[in-house]
Amino acid sequence: MKMIINNVEIKDNERLEDLNRKGYKLIQNPEEFCFGIDAVLLSAFAKGKRNETVLDLCTGSGVIPILMEAKTKASLFYGVEIQPDAAERAARSVKLNGLEDKITIYEGDIKDLSKFFLPDSISVITCNPPYADPDSGLHNQSYKMAVAKHEILCTLEDVIKCAEMYLKPCGRFYMIHRPGRITDILCLMRQYGIEPKVLRFVQPYANKAPTMLLVEGKKGGHPGIKVPEPLVVYNKDQSYTEEILRLYNE
Amino acid sequence: MKMIINNVEIKDNERLEDLNRKGYKLIQNPEEFCFGIDAVLLSAFAKGKRNETVLDLCTGSGVIPILMEAKTKASLFYGVEIQPDAAERAARSVKLNGLEDKITIYEGDIKDLSKFFLPDSISVITCNPPYADPDSGLHNQSYKMAVAKHEILCTLEDVIKCAEMYLKPCGRFYMIHRPGRITDILCLMRQYGIEPKVLRFVQPYANKAPTMLLVEGKKGGHPGIKVPEPLVVYNKDQSYTEEILRLYNE
Repeated sequence: MKMIINNVEIKDNERLEDLNRKGYKLIQNPEEFCFGIDAVLLSAFAKGKRNETVLDLCTGSGVIPILMEAKTKASLFYGVEIQPDAAERAARSVKLNGLEDKITIYEGDIKDLSKFFLPDSISVITCNPPYADPDSGLHNQSYKMAVAKHEILCTLEDVIKCAEMYLKPCGRFYMIHRPGRITDILCLMRQYGIEPKVLRFVQPYANKAPTMLLVEGKKGGHPGIKVPEPLVVYNKDQSYTEEILRLYNE
Repeated sequence: MKMIINNVEIKDNERLEDLNRKGYKLIQNPEEFCFGIDAVLLSAFAKGKRNETVLDLCTGSGVIPILMEAKTKASLFYGVEIQPDAAERAARSVKLNGLEDKITIYEGDIKDLSKFFLPDSISVITCNPPYADPDSGLHNQSYKMAVAKHEILCTLEDVIKCAEMYLKPCGRFYMIHRPGRITDILCLMRQYGIEPKVLRFVQPYANKAPTMLLVEGKKGGHPGIKVPEPLVVYNKDQSYTEEILRLYNE
């Protein structure tokens, strides 16, 4: 049985996820890497202003550009994904939501985006990159899952180098990553001239170690960083905190 | 009127502070920079093991070596202080507590400690350095206060450079500093081969931004850092948290 919505085919192995924003939906393949809370956190942390262009690296399902289109005032959004079927699925999600005029998905390698973008041309770059180091842990998932989760096809340095190349002067870079990489993240950002300006940790509970961090950098920015209060996901009673509920629903 | 305790003179402008440890007391001049919670936090965060040597840079009143003598199993402690009267006062505090065999205070500049120590010779280096950048804020305090609070006579880079020079291979570096310097701290530590291994933020309340950070580095260590849960100072009702009470009293 074929499911077709807005002239877009949803395949048998796919499911539709409601994004709780403007009725937007996302096509996902549950056997591959599905979007999670990190995408919601990053798209809420990243700011997009009127007339700005936003490029999402390693876009996967395209969830970040779609959420940022819903949440911010930026004008044009791009997503780049190296895995052909994920890129194709992201493009279908864009079409499904009728966003072809605002969001473009490219299948490509962030190590060479010169055929899509000019250097120093993008206002905002976002990235929810593959997290774990390729040498750490077992790659006992499928190859596609491993690519999405590990630094196999793109390293942290590739991401930051790419941001440096395509951001306008004073352009902003937003990334979500693991606290265990904080030294690498801050040193590489500074090395490539993307000065870290805001660093926010995400903790499951107020008294637990952070499991994620959000970082904002500014191309050519001056040294000086703010570390606001941690973003806490759950209250003691395991309900979501007010801030998390706001991020999911506002 | 002269106050003399253990053959040590306490001057008119000085006061004695109880350190809550083995009956130790500290001589302080309330008009100059007095030890605060940061000294207590650093001396609890830093580990000193049997037969290890501990060197405290910018030791001020000598509070860190005195507290670490009380709390850790390390054997020998050194403190270096550039301001002659602070160094003299620290030495009197050491004598007052009968610790001359274990703690030595040197008056000197951390930019040249070659007359006191051999390179690669110290197990542990601690530092509660001057906090604010020399260009930031007004220096409207006395000169002595300004030296203790600002990077006038020693910069963050001087501290880390010094740690690199005098730590043994695999020696440990412990510092307390401001979150706003985190990029400088992590980048300089890595640059000088003191790999950051633990990073802990200190927050006044569970839902407030951190005001201090504690960092542990390892000379020649491999990349990989732990970020544990934040250290929270006050409960909602403004009483001290259990962890803080434990640090002050155990």
